[in-house]
Order: sequence, then C-alpha cells, then structure tokens
Amino acid sequence: MQVISSFADLTSHLVESKQRKRIAVANAVDPHTLEAVLMAVDQGIVEAFLIGDLAEIEPPLWNLKSEILKYLHIIDIPEVKEATLEAVRMVKSDEADILMKGLVNTDVILRAILDKEKGLLPPGNVMTYNAALEIPKYHKLLFFSDPAVIPYPTIEQRKAMIKYAINTCRKFGIKQPKIALIHATEKANPKIMFMQDYLDILQSWRMGEFGDVIIDGPLDIFLSLDSERGAIKHVPTPVLGDADVLIFPDFACANSFYKGLALFAGAEMGGILQGTVKPCVLNSRSDSSRSKFFSIAIACILA
Amino acid sequence: MQVISSFADLTSHLVESKQRKRIAVANAVDPHTLEAVLMAVDQGIVEAFLIGDLAEIEPPLWNLKSEILKYLHIIDIPEVKEATLEAVRMVKSDEADILMKGLVNTDVILRAILDKEKGLLPPGNVMTYNAALEIPKYHKLLFFSDPAVIPYPTIEQRKAMIKYAINTCRKFGIKQPKIALIHATEKANPKIMFMQDYLDILQSWRMGEFGDVIIDGPLDIFLSLDSERGAIKHVPTPVLGDADVLIFPDFACANSFYKGLALFAGAEMGGILQGTVKPCVLNSRSDSSRSKFFSIAIACILA
Repeated sequence: MQVISSFADLTSHLVESKQRKRIAVANAVDPHTLEAVLMAVDQGIVEAFLIGDLAEIEPPLWNLKSEILKYLHIIDIPEVKEATLEAVRMVKSDEADILMKGLVNTDVILRAILDKEKGLLPPGNVMTYNAALEIPKYHKLLFFSDPAVIPYPTIEQRKAMIKYAINTCRKFGIKQPKIALIHATEKANPKIMFMQDYLDILQSWRMGEFGDVIIDGPLDIFLSLDSERGAIKHVPTPVLGDADVLIFPDFACANSFYKGLALFAGAEMGGILQGTVKPCVLNSRSDSSRSKFFSIAIACILA
Repeated sequence: MQVISSFADLTSHLVESKQRKRIAVANAVDPHTLEAVLMAVDQGIVEAFLIGDLAEIEPPLWNLKSEILKYLHIIDIPEVKEATLEAVRMVKSDEADILMKGLVNTDVILRAILDKEKGLLPPGNVMTYNAALEIPKYHKLLFFSDPAVIPYPTIEQRKAMIKYAINTCRKFGIKQPKIALIHATEKANPKIMFMQDYLDILQSWRMGEFGDVIIDGPLDIFLSLDSERGAIKHVPTPVLGDADVLIFPDFACANSFYKGLALFAGAEMGGILQGTVKPCVLNSRSDSSRSKFFSIAIACILA
C-alpha cells in the first residue's frame, strides 16, 4: 500500500476502501461530535449508532441525503450513563467496531471501558492514548504517546505504547517506523528519570523485541524532527529529522508539546485509546469537529 | 516605562537607553556567537571583551566602523579553559557585567561558574535557566523556565524560578505578571508528580510571598495561552489565554515545548542563566545568531 502521510491521504484511503466501520457514539449531542460523525457517515467511512437523548440534537445538523440516512441510527436513551453503557455493550458484543465519546464525562466512559465484566480492556492490557499530529511544516504525520492517559509510564507501559504505535504505523503503510524516545537532551544519564528505561528499551530493541523498526533515544525534538538543527549537534542517529513516532517521557510533556503546536503551528490532531479490544475515540470537549473526525478516521483504519 | 512585548521592542529600548553593558565572552570563535556579539556592539548595547584564540576568528566578520571598534577588545588566550576562567574572573571582579559562552563545552563553563571560590553563584542561590520566547501568533513575549538546567525542580527551586521570572517581567515593564504552573491538566490531583508543589505554591502566593502577581495552576497550555480554546473548558482562571510566564513541571517538558515551536511556529528564543551574581548567556551551539543576540539583549536589561 501507499504510505499515508497526511489526514487527507487517510480520508482518501478510507473512502476508496468503501468499507463502513460501525461506530457506537455515547451521547452524541454536542455539535462537534455530531458534525464529526455526520461527516464520517457522509464520506462513506462509518455507519453510526447515535445513542443518547435525541431531543437535544439540533435540527440543522440533519441534512444528509436519504441514501446516506440509512447509515445513521438513533438509539434513544435519555440518561447519559445508560447511553454510555449501551454504547460499550454494543462494541463488546460486536454490534459495533468503534466506541466514541460524545457529551459524557471522561470518568464515566472510562469506568465503563474499565469494567472487568462488561468493559473493553482485556486483563493485563496496557491502556494508552496514541495520537497523530499533522503539522503543516513537517513532512508527514507524526504519531505520539501519551498526552492524556498514563501520567508517568513504567517501562512495561512504555513498551506497550511503542508496540501500539508500531502497529498503527504499519496500518498507515510505514515499512520501518522511526521511533524517538524524547527527553530534554540526547545525553543518556541514568540518574535522570526515564533515561534508564530508555536504555533498557534500546537494549530490547537490539535483541529484536520490536521487530523491523528503528528506535533511538534519548533524543531531543531537534534531533528527532529537523535534520538541519539536529545535524549541528553531531549526534549520529538513524532517526535524524525523520521520526514517525515520538514517545514522550510523560503526559505533561506530550500534552504541552501538542497543544503548543495546535495553537501556534496550525497542527491538527486525531487520537484514540489503545489497548482496548476495539479502538475508542475519546476526544476532549475542547477538540474541534475536524480533530474528532480525524480521530474517527484513525479508529477506522485500526478497527 | 512602556511594556516590552517583543524582541524588537527590547532592542529599541536598549538602543534608546544608550548604555553599553560590558560583556566577557569565553572563546568567542564560533560564527554565531561572534555575529551576535558584533551585532550587539554595533547597535550600541554592549562593550565586548572577546577572550580566546584570536587566530581562529574569521576576518570577514571584522567590518565594524572604527568608532565602534573601540568597544571591542580582544584578549588573546589560546587555551579554552584558561579563556573561560578569565571571562568568569572579569565578571566576578566587576570588570564585566555579563558572562557569555562561546565555543566552550557547557560542562567547562558551568564548572567555572559553580566554583565555590572563584565562581559566580552565591552560596544558597538556585541556578536556573529563564528564557523568553517570541511566538509570531502570541501577542507578547512568553517567559518560561526551565528547559535546561534543573531537571526535576524541588518546590524551593521552583519558587526561586518563579521569583527570577517575576523580576525579569518587572524589567520588561509588566506590572502584574501572569504566571501559569503548567501540567497536562487543570485538575489538581496531589498524587500526580508536582501537583502538590503547585498547590503549596498557590497557598504561598495567597499569603503574599510573591508580591503583586497572578499565579494559577495546574493549567494546561490551552488555558494558559488561548482564551478561546481555554474558555471551552469553563475553568475560571485569571491567567486565561494571557500568561506572561510558564513554569513547566520539568526540563523535558519545557525543552520539548520550545523546540517544537522553534521548528514549526517560527518562534525565536533568548535566554539566560539566573541565580548567578550577574546574568550569564549560555546558549547551545545549535542556537542561531539571532537567538544569541536576543539572549545578550535579555542579559543587558537585567545586568
């Protein structure tokens, strides 16, 4: 397959594949979620189950053609928690391929996902957030973890993050993903938090644990994303200026990095929860409908 | 005074003040350092002492007018470590107001600065890096700490950072600086690293420890820097979208944030070491000459 290197590529790829993934949306009553879902239905990439309080949905959003409308199903459950549980149930019972959060508190939907009996996380699986960033001045999509779910990853959690990211890269047609373990400096000092984990991960990579990928770290943002600025440092790294994936030391670092670029570099983000039996779209309320649409698109290619 | 809200403002302010600060530059033989220093000499804001191996300086850089040349002094000391020690000695003995690093390993100059007898750090002082970022899409300069020197600050170190930043803001004419304590989320959970320190700092602020400033946190980048995206979260904060200062949880976070914006948002940075008896300009080799010039300018207003 061709490498998918932008959100436009991703959308075209999905449209061309002519496969509608079934998405169950918990309380899809906020405009951004609705817009994103309707866009995805309209483009032919999902069949949507909107579960929630129908009465709250604003009429102007309903202008899909009738041949499209058949891919939109309303399941009227006014109570938010009930609606959320129903959406999770549909995904678990294979009536849907993707779970999506609408106007639901993150806590509420996470509790449903994490429920040992009725939830979506297999025992022992690491749940993490994996996102793709499209930065106008970067030459391809940039995947990164974890801006939201795991505050300070253990080495096992970090290895799981890397493996999910690799799997995602493969679905995007990237043959040999380049993964940067990010820190403030490329000087590995085991006394500094996470540096020893990075060195251990490199060791595991050399032993073949991650397959045909390139991993290097600690690396800073310059070395990872800009060959010119990186080259000045004279640090030999196979990632130099061409990273596909950034694994950040912790969630504050990942979070601040992407939000800075969203505000000031025109970056757009899509992201999903990984580790669950099926992809879950859990954007925050402040995300745009475009960002929510990109998240759905990423979920579709992984579902 | 008028508020200085860009590097252009800062330069004009310094030019108009018609005061040359004396800068001692250790081994100023690399083009970016030399360019920055000569620019500062040419603009009338510094009198420079270039200490190092004269023979290595490239002739094309010497095209200053003769009435300017008298503010440029060459002290020929071929050995890098000796040159560094001499630069530090000049600053300590008040023969210079500012120390600047040229082509010297950071370790070497830091050792000289930290020397208990001959160095520049008074006992008990916290040494940290304070930088200003000019982001084309942000409406003013954005100060932040610490991308380089203190990996994971203690609460005492963090309070010192905040106080240095406040002092810097005052010199830039900012009456009531707005300071954001940055994290991945605005939800204060004391179990998450640094959150308890943030809460304690807020408490100290309410008790008046920091004077006439506004401090809030934890806040994410959206709440701190963008009133529109921040407002969606409905989190009441007096900082909303108008922060003057970002205090990052740790150096990896600060470092990744600014490097991302430098690469993809056209951001320019100047920064200095604080806590020392006089400002020290310690840019890294990969910084541009503009960035080094801005660092000199910040040092000048603080010297």
